[in-house]
Amino acid sequence: MDGRTGATAGGPGARLEDISPPGRVAGPDEGIGIDELALAARNHGLPLEALRYDVTPPGLHYVLVHYDIPATASEDWLLTVGGRVRRPLTLDLPTLRSFPAVTLRVTMECAGNGRARLAPRPVSQPWLVEAVGTAEWTGVPLRLLLDEAGVGADAVEAVFGGADHGVERGVEQDYRRSLPLAVASGGDPPVLVAYGMNGSPLPPQHGRPLRLVVPGWYGMAHVKWLRDITLTDTPFTGFQQSVAYRYRQEADDPGEPVTRIEPRALMVPPGFPDFMSRTRVVRPGPVPLEGRAWSGYGEVERVEVSTDDGRSWGEAELAPPDGNVWAWRRWRTSWAAGPGRHVLSVRATDATGRTQPVEQPWNRGGFGNNLVQRVPVLCVPER
Amino acid sequence: MDGRTGATAGGPGARLEDISPPGRVAGPDEGIGIDELALAARNHGLPLEALRYDVTPPGLHYVLVHYDIPATASEDWLLTVGGRVRRPLTLDLPTLRSFPAVTLRVTMECAGNGRARLAPRPVSQPWLVEAVGTAEWTGVPLRLLLDEAGVGADAVEAVFGGADHGVERGVEQDYRRSLPLAVASGGDPPVLVAYGMNGSPLPPQHGRPLRLVVPGWYGMAHVKWLRDITLTDTPFTGFQQSVAYRYRQEADDPGEPVTRIEPRALMVPPGFPDFMSRTRVVRPGPVPLEGRAWSGYGEVERVEVSTDDGRSWGEAELAPPDGNVWAWRRWRTSWAAGPGRHVLSVRATDATGRTQPVEQPWNRGGFGNNLVQRVPVLCVPER
Repeated sequence: MDGRTGATAGGPGARLEDISPPGRVAGPDEGIGIDELALAARNHGLPLEALRYDVTPPGLHYVLVHYDIPATASEDWLLTVGGRVRRPLTLDLPTLRSFPAVTLRVTMECAGNGRARLAPRPVSQPWLVEAVGTAEWTGVPLRLLLDEAGVGADAVEAVFGGADHGVERGVEQDYRRSLPLAVASGGDPPVLVAYGMNGSPLPPQHGRPLRLVVPGWYGMAHVKWLRDITLTDTPFTGFQQSVAYRYRQEADDPGEPVTRIEPRALMVPPGFPDFMSRTRVVRPGPVPLEGRAWSGYGEVERVEVSTDDGRSWGEAELAPPDGNVWAWRRWRTSWAAGPGRHVLSVRATDATGRTQPVEQPWNRGGFGNNLVQRVPVLCVPER
Repeated sequence: MDGRTGATAGGPGARLEDISPPGRVAGPDEGIGIDELALAARNHGLPLEALRYDVTPPGLHYVLVHYDIPATASEDWLLTVGGRVRRPLTLDLPTLRSFPAVTLRVTMECAGNGRARLAPRPVSQPWLVEAVGTAEWTGVPLRLLLDEAGVGADAVEAVFGGADHGVERGVEQDYRRSLPLAVASGGDPPVLVAYGMNGSPLPPQHGRPLRLVVPGWYGMAHVKWLRDITLTDTPFTGFQQSVAYRYRQEADDPGEPVTRIEPRALMVPPGFPDFMSRTRVVRPGPVPLEGRAWSGYGEVERVEVSTDDGRSWGEAELAPPDGNVWAWRRWRTSWAAGPGRHVLSVRATDATGRTQPVEQPWNRGGFGNNLVQRVPVLCVPER
């Protein structure tokens, strides 16, 4: 199959590259492929009606697993802390649980949320808008572990290694990501080495028995099935850091790293749906609208709603601050629905002034999308 | 938009039919559409590596919700039993929990599993192969409730109504399905009115607070968010019984009802995956193969594995019977992998002699598919 090497697809010379395609964008009229569908069937988003819960119930929080959920047995798990430290550590779970525990309510979103709406569409996990969830994560602040290990004077980054193993664009790898030392050792918010989700041990798909939680950052930073932390004196250049998860326009741009979550608001779709089109149906009269809004850069300070497909916007009422600054914030308003077809939209603005676009800028990986949500609604009289 | 009525898409004359398309099959080269993707992003399958668990952990069991997950508050829920009974009942949850409880391990599969592999593809929830899961369901045998209510002499079916409300092919409806009285009142296996899943209350997406569990039947029979049971003296002709969930070749065939689960075996994909193609990678040498097999018609008695894309088949070892006759059965074998590309397959045969096809018969709804699984594998030397 490959004239350069003489290898054939079925023969003993077959190579990883033969089954591990390069990144690409879909053609102009190319529907979602079976490869994208296989990812969509494994991973899943938040059914939008579940925005009604302050904390997402188990099984409804979005999940994105790059390779396989590893077969991890909880109680014999070891976490190492090494590299540019004075005292390398090997920590078992009882030891980790003996540190002072912190519980944080954190909204997590996949960096590729919204990718499937881009034109042209980057071919990868094809999220529409639903790759989000909020959980209460319990664990040890990472800075306590770094203090215990003694950070070397020359350390600049912390590299986090997970047990999820696979191939991506020809590169065999364990999933690994880094954080700048200032983020990893920060106290407000703390980065957590988490062993609990919503008061229970982590489910297998969320990293059992240990994962990183990095409040305000997109999901790729929250390394699951965490087994090693390595401080380095040079920036990490592994696949997930310098190849994937970059904002770039062309394949050979160095690009900018994907980091914090752009602001977004979503609505609990009102009324009830059509099975296939997911168009919503409501009856004439007042329709309560509600949802959630979040940002990884600062608290959401404003949510606006449009009931005329973005031509005009009105202010929604924000729930009062409750101290969970790294979790989504509830908003509400009401709409006087009249017969016919409508498009509802919502957009958030955060304390830094960041807001959501009505036309989505494009990047080759399909990251950091936060286009305003459009919810088509049909208002019809009672049967 | 509709010349016959003068209604326009945006105007006050818009109708349910405008947003609720009829059933259809995809064109020959038609990729997966955004409507199908929206269903795939909401609903999700079992990541196949989770076949390793006897009982599927929460959040990994497949979920298919026709409309929305209703906002159900557990403790004030009421279940009515009425129609052709001598003593209509209204049962609250404490009363239901006061009946003798039964826990059954049951494998559930969506009737549309495999639909996205059909050619032409019926346009609906686009499952590949992963719409399955096994749970331990706890509840009251339905026959105890029917005994309490006193089944009328003329009753022939029990109709089950759930709180999931929506539109499908122009028909506004609560999700409703029926069972023949002999199945509903059976004792071996019992049909359960279940309030527990894996030792906890039902999660919202699995029917909180009550659902039906019908061992051996495809998922459409296990009505979630159950709130009424009505015995009838004529067969139920509601949408989900006589329009959807029929085996038919043409849109106007009356068709045959979809009932029990066809036999199927699935494999834990060996080795590790490529992110995008999901092709598996293994190293040369012995590779353990394992998985699960099930059937709604009788116990699985034979599992065969092929490592040469179906040209030859060898017997796998079945786990000894453990009494869970309505749950999947574990199988194992080993494969001596040599370098190159391979296709692994597995097929189950049950006690009634039903087995799995290597070419899938087609039906318009895409139901009851049980084509043998094909797992592409690349065997390469260690790096």
